[in-house]
Amino acid sequence: MIIAVDTSGGDFAPGEIIKGAVQGANEYDVDVVLVGKKSLIHLSAARHLKNPHISIVEADQVIESDESPMRAVMAKPESSIVVGINLLKEGKVDAFISAGNTGALFGAAFLKLGVVEGVERPAICAILDITGGTPVLLLDAGANADCKPSYLFQFAEMGNAFAQKVIGIAEPRVALLSNGSEDIKGSKLVIESHELMRAAGNKFNFIGNIEGNDLPKGKADVVITDGFTGNVVIKTLEGLGEAVQNFKHLWRAVASTGHVHGTALMSSVEIDTWARKLDFREYGGACLLGVKGNVIKAHGRSRAAAIKNAVNLARQTVEGNIYATIQKE
Amino acid sequence: MIIAVDTSGGDFAPGEIIKGAVQGANEYDVDVVLVGKKSLIHLSAARHLKNPHISIVEADQVIESDESPMRAVMAKPESSIVVGINLLKEGKVDAFISAGNTGALFGAAFLKLGVVEGVERPAICAILDITGGTPVLLLDAGANADCKPSYLFQFAEMGNAFAQKVIGIAEPRVALLSNGSEDIKGSKLVIESHELMRAAGNKFNFIGNIEGNDLPKGKADVVITDGFTGNVVIKTLEGLGEAVQNFKHLWRAVASTGHVHGTALMSSVEIDTWARKLDFREYGGACLLGVKGNVIKAHGRSRAAAIKNAVNLARQTVEGNIYATIQKE
Repeated sequence: MIIAVDTSGGDFAPGEIIKGAVQGANEYDVDVVLVGKKSLIHLSAARHLKNPHISIVEADQVIESDESPMRAVMAKPESSIVVGINLLKEGKVDAFISAGNTGALFGAAFLKLGVVEGVERPAICAILDITGGTPVLLLDAGANADCKPSYLFQFAEMGNAFAQKVIGIAEPRVALLSNGSEDIKGSKLVIESHELMRAAGNKFNFIGNIEGNDLPKGKADVVITDGFTGNVVIKTLEGLGEAVQNFKHLWRAVASTGHVHGTALMSSVEIDTWARKLDFREYGGACLLGVKGNVIKAHGRSRAAAIKNAVNLARQTVEGNIYATIQKE
Repeated sequence: MIIAVDTSGGDFAPGEIIKGAVQGANEYDVDVVLVGKKSLIHLSAARHLKNPHISIVEADQVIESDESPMRAVMAKPESSIVVGINLLKEGKVDAFISAGNTGALFGAAFLKLGVVEGVERPAICAILDITGGTPVLLLDAGANADCKPSYLFQFAEMGNAFAQKVIGIAEPRVALLSNGSEDIKGSKLVIESHELMRAAGNKFNFIGNIEGNDLPKGKADVVITDGFTGNVVIKTLEGLGEAVQNFKHLWRAVASTGHVHGTALMSSVEIDTWARKLDFREYGGACLLGVKGNVIKAHGRSRAAAIKNAVNLARQTVEGNIYATIQKE
């Protein structure tokens, strides 16, 4: 299995990206293609280049995080994002990971890979682990600000397939995010989507509506929403996650004074675990579902550990053969 | 000033509601009318009934939290919610507080009080204090699942007036909640609302779009969104707030073992403050803006302290004369 990694995108590129990609190649037994500026990759990672599982593909342009996505994709054919997506299209790699410009990554994927038959719009599938148990998938996490009921229905089919094939949940509980748990509650979009899903029979296990406060309770495995609401929810969780991280550091500083002993130290470990659950950087990334290829978006703030996890997620996505599953349905 | 309090609504009615209402009357120097079943109020609060600032209005029907709101409002004219709203309509009280069925409270207010001129739809104005500083107003927090740009514009006008007159912010920063901070980012609704607000000139201080992760950062004083997204965001924050509360209790249990000393105890106080900021019960309630009367919704899980705070919020809302301000604009 060959996984391409964009070494030019993300706040800690190229150093942390390369480090994480190499760790991923070693730990998960996959081949990694580093896509970016050769000279910079050599500078950062010369010692890894003798590793037979690591290779480089040159891409000397960079799409910055604040560039207009579609314009950048058109104007920069030698950018790491466009080169990486092309490798995927040509079948030279099995998956592509980037921590760069989200819009450009998904725009390039949409334009160049095309959309799976039967899918009107690709969706971003975010993987949340706020419950402490099995992760919760949330889609669309931001690709489509305005949606139709048929889009949400297809998001449910794709999320269901991903939960089964990649996460390994036999019969995922699929729910609609709404402003009330009752069947008749919701915006016009949610009410009409609810009716479509109720009528879907055994295509997936639709458990009805859930509310925002149900998200941390693990009431559903796959949570379906439009890309506007999905983005706002993810960002809100992220904002609070950062607050908890800051709080954790405060606590650690206190603990390090030596005034905390015994059972309190146990609690320190618990704080750490809990705070990490709210730190989405740890889970490696989100998948773009519905395009003809395995595309993983890592967080812009990803460090090596997150990129290593993204390599693992990419590997699981390739093994799950999610693209073929969605197409068949 | 006379404030009516529904003693039949909420998880801890009537005991905690009456206790909080009496505390509020004493602390904020207002008269309180308890609206509910006289016999139950006498049982719970006989000793307070000699207080000259406390009186009772009989309402022997109860709208349960799971009843269909509009049907219940029609079918139960003697319910505490309908009786309380009628007191407000007849000018016998200055504000009405209920921790009962949200839909029924707002439905009754909408039907019986009517809507302020120039306002198409009333909105729920939630008061969040996650920043540790000045509270952030979020509206619409759930009254209107489907909105038009003109609604959002009016929400901005009402929120601006509330922030000025009730919260006391001279020039509130008003922002639109979106899936990107750039002006052109958003759903169709947000993009069109953005254009309306940009064109509003000096009606209010529109600072543009903010994202979900900006909410805890205090980037804006008034955050405008549709009632579907608003509800999902509030519930998501609430769900995480509960998780933090549970965590706080765990920490306290550890601290009580006596293994935590010195600076760690200081930190315990900080944890408490921080966790409380995520506990929306403390802030008393949300206001329904745009109806002809001061209506406060307290959280269904409100205990005495929250009801006392709701009395204070009602008092400030009456003093701010927010209803007259909105109407004038």
